Amino acid sequence: MSTNLTKHNFTVTRERREEVNGQKGMVLWFTGLSGSGKSTIANALDDELNKLGKKTYILDGDNIRMGLNKDLSFSAEDRKENIRRISEVAKLFADSGTIVLTAFISPYISDRQAARDLIGDDFSEVFVDADIEECIKRDPKGLYKKALAGEIKGFTGIDAPYEKPTQAEIIIKDLSISESVESLLKYIN
Amino acid sequence: MSTNLTKHNFTVTRERREEVNGQKGMVLWFTGLSGSGKSTIANALDDELNKLGKKTYILDGDNIRMGLNKDLSFSAEDRKENIRRISEVAKLFADSGTIVLTAFISPYISDRQAARDLIGDDFSEVFVDADIEECIKRDPKGLYKKALAGEIKGFTGIDAPYEKPTQAEIIIKDLSISESVESLLKYIN
Repeated sequence: MSTNLTKHNFTVTRERREEVNGQKGMVLWFTGLSGSGKSTIANALDDELNKLGKKTYILDGDNIRMGLNKDLSFSAEDRKENIRRISEVAKLFADSGTIVLTAFISPYISDRQAARDLIGDDFSEVFVDADIEECIKRDPKGLYKKALAGEIKGFTGIDAPYEKPTQAEIIIKDLSISESVESLLKYIN
Repeated sequence: MSTNLTKHNFTVTRERREEVNGQKGMVLWFTGLSGSGKSTIANALDDELNKLGKKTYILDGDNIRMGLNKDLSFSAEDRKENIRRISEVAKLFADSGTIVLTAFISPYISDRQAARDLIGDDFSEVFVDADIEECIKRDPKGLYKKALAGEIKGFTGIDAPYEKPTQAEIIIKDLSISESVESLLKYIN
């Protein structure tokens, strides 16, 4: 397939980009149930980092599922391809010297492991650990209600599995948003 | 497909990212034959921009065809999907406040138009206009030789078409590398 590909050597290295940016590129990979607070915490962290002059970017359903991955469904196979593409894009952003926050349920251990393998040392897994009962109670988007009524099929935590991380670098549990941000900022520094 | 997608409002806007970066995000979309000098010129421009403290990133075959798009062939259909995904990723980088340089042959007018439509005002087309005879003579990767010998099929300019831009913002023709960079820097500023 790739017979006419060759490798260029670019003059501007990652190191030179990071020097201009005054920071190291990295990927904070948020995972957790729908309604666990992934996007809320990533958003609050993003706000703080921006105030500190850091170059950040959030990848989430809004800018990925409606764009790059709009051809993908929520089947297990397409979820896998979804996570693969997100991993590749996150890797590019880290290589550009950006602090990338990804906020996707990413329910399968194998997919997250593939992301970890691809991204390498720049990858940190952030498990936003909330009980399914609590998420159902919150139900900020009304999705659990629909899933429990059978109107949405294959919904994580209802009729599709969520496989908890076993090696997350950071676990957020029973913390307020500001406490979560504080602990993440400590980890980044 | 997308029944369980909702729109978040992020606290950190593009404007706040651009303020931290001290620049506007944009996409310079290089197009031209293999061997026309797209990557060479993009690379030299990247070098200059980095020295000026600008946040830049190059998307090209190296980091896209071997990563995000490694599942795609060089058929017309897969070339289209290749360009679609590159457009989506370039759009994300521009949204992050980065100056993105894309260096792909991107031979079809319709695909480049789709990129322009998707990316909007941030999109500028840079046509690196070199004669096919000159490219064959240069043949820096030895690919034309293989294509002319029939060892590579569907090679742009040999047995696959290159559709010249009709509305490029910038045309690079008969310029040295440093002259090309100078004219591009003028355009950016």
